Amino acid sequence: MKAPWITYRPEIKVLDCTIRDGGLINDHQFDDDFVKAVYDTCVAAGVDYMEIGYKASKQGIANRTKFGDWKFCDEDCIRRIVGDNPTPLKLAVMADAGKCDYREDIPPKRDSVVDVIRVATYVNQIPIAVDMINDAHEKGYEVTCNLMAVSTVQEVELDQALEVLRDTPASTIVVVDSFGALYMEQVELLVRKYLKALEGTGKEVGLHMHNNQQLAFANTIEGIIHGANRLDCTMGGLGRGAGNCPMELMLGFLRNPKYNVRPVYQLLQDHFVKLRKKLEWGPLVPYNIVGQLNQHPRAAMAMLAGPDRDKYVEFYDKCISEV
Amino acid sequence: MKAPWITYRPEIKVLDCTIRDGGLINDHQFDDDFVKAVYDTCVAAGVDYMEIGYKASKQGIANRTKFGDWKFCDEDCIRRIVGDNPTPLKLAVMADAGKCDYREDIPPKRDSVVDVIRVATYVNQIPIAVDMINDAHEKGYEVTCNLMAVSTVQEVELDQALEVLRDTPASTIVVVDSFGALYMEQVELLVRKYLKALEGTGKEVGLHMHNNQQLAFANTIEGIIHGANRLDCTMGGLGRGAGNCPMELMLGFLRNPKYNVRPVYQLLQDHFVKLRKKLEWGPLVPYNIVGQLNQHPRAAMAMLAGPDRDKYVEFYDKCISEV
Repeated sequence: MKAPWITYRPEIKVLDCTIRDGGLINDHQFDDDFVKAVYDTCVAAGVDYMEIGYKASKQGIANRTKFGDWKFCDEDCIRRIVGDNPTPLKLAVMADAGKCDYREDIPPKRDSVVDVIRVATYVNQIPIAVDMINDAHEKGYEVTCNLMAVSTVQEVELDQALEVLRDTPASTIVVVDSFGALYMEQVELLVRKYLKALEGTGKEVGLHMHNNQQLAFANTIEGIIHGANRLDCTMGGLGRGAGNCPMELMLGFLRNPKYNVRPVYQLLQDHFVKLRKKLEWGPLVPYNIVGQLNQHPRAAMAMLAGPDRDKYVEFYDKCISEV
Repeated sequence: MKAPWITYRPEIKVLDCTIRDGGLINDHQFDDDFVKAVYDTCVAAGVDYMEIGYKASKQGIANRTKFGDWKFCDEDCIRRIVGDNPTPLKLAVMADAGKCDYREDIPPKRDSVVDVIRVATYVNQIPIAVDMINDAHEKGYEVTCNLMAVSTVQEVELDQALEVLRDTPASTIVVVDSFGALYMEQVELLVRKYLKALEGTGKEVGLHMHNNQQLAFANTIEGIIHGANRLDCTMGGLGRGAGNCPMELMLGFLRNPKYNVRPVYQLLQDHFVKLRKKLEWGPLVPYNIVGQLNQHPRAAMAMLAGPDRDKYVEFYDKCISEV
């Protein structure tokens, strides 16, 4: 094709993870109004999936009110927003390996309005992730797997992880750039690797990019070009640290007429102008620095929350001394 | 190469256009302290070129004090900052086709501390641009040409323009995404086209990307991958509307040891934290919209300067009615 961006690939599906990823910067304390607005926007915009939060373990949590409902996603909380979800939008929740009581807390699909369990795992947690995938699959869910922080994984371990995941019932394996460290050429190599490892299984490759270097949107496009068909985006790019691939940019890029970007602008106007005054996210300088150095954003988040939030050089010197 | 981003291409040179492009949002009213800080940072960071402003016509300007010195770049103004510029940093000024008295206002190179004249032109101004290129070349300067708003140019006209520019003494022809509308695949096609058109001349292809869709950095990387060796960047991404490719991100990507990103972080800390309180730039929602629609950013700039700056949907509706 001479100008492939002019047309579209019908296999591509978009997942909104605004509430789930955004919850990491406010202890999941979104009010119902906001969650409902994101849900309604997903439906109106033709988004395929909405991830509404985590299925986190309640054990060891002394002060339950410190966290909003979207850390736990109890069935009645979700139904408070979506009712029986009489829409084409599929609902997802994320279950973190080692941080949830999946056997107990994830009900059988027949008792849940949730459609998809997204298992998130680091490469060293693959055995428990596989058990989680099997558990959710047996309960009747569509299951996908986010293999996190791939920019820090040794190639031999990644190959092994993909070999193991290939034999699970997970329908999508997601390339996750937790540190916002990847350049497009790296995304290309990873997507090709995942596709090759999963060849013949019918599994899809997904993309979950962070915006530390202003590359979340670009890296998602790059992954699409090389064959990834599942995209994680968030409204306004809301998400931990530098945030995620912005839904409004992605829907503008995808030319599938089933998508409509206008409701997203409505949401940004009605809710995100206010939200920006309360929460901070986006590719600020400290996130540029940790992204470039392939480091976890936690040091940048801590620095931005303190009195030295503008001391970039001191922060840079500290970060490079830790490389 | 399996992982080309690990190494570097010594031919690549970086131009800082912070003061020149940034001047478009404050009528070029930067104080000497700031301009000197950018200059010192370019030298310390190993940046190859610094574009310090425009050589704009003074005719018809009733109120000269409305504009800062960097709209005109008189020789004594530049020397106030750089002296005789006893550094490896080369200095550039931009001359806009149809907006300058180049014959009179650009002195012979022997009388100037400026090294490079950058001729900026729309495709319909090619004849005058060629005259400007020849004039500056005959005066002894290195000359380059920024062919603006390429996302709106018909291919047959672009081919013709490149054929004409091929025969001029311009040493670099720059792909300019004035509207921040290009996706990476389009940048790839353009860079390949420019390189092919200029093959055998020794001319280089440059990149000047705007950040309307958060793609300025990504598109610059993409252009590099396909052979462009001249990069326009600005400190903190400062520039008109959504701004430009951020220098701090680019120097982190380029692994040439002659570059040093630390002084850029120092500049951002010392000057840009303050500047952000006075000037607004970056990929705000209205810039996303005009970028996506391949429209000039002027409507977004006007809307952001007014009382309806948060009314994204109204703005979107207005923009699509004008497509």
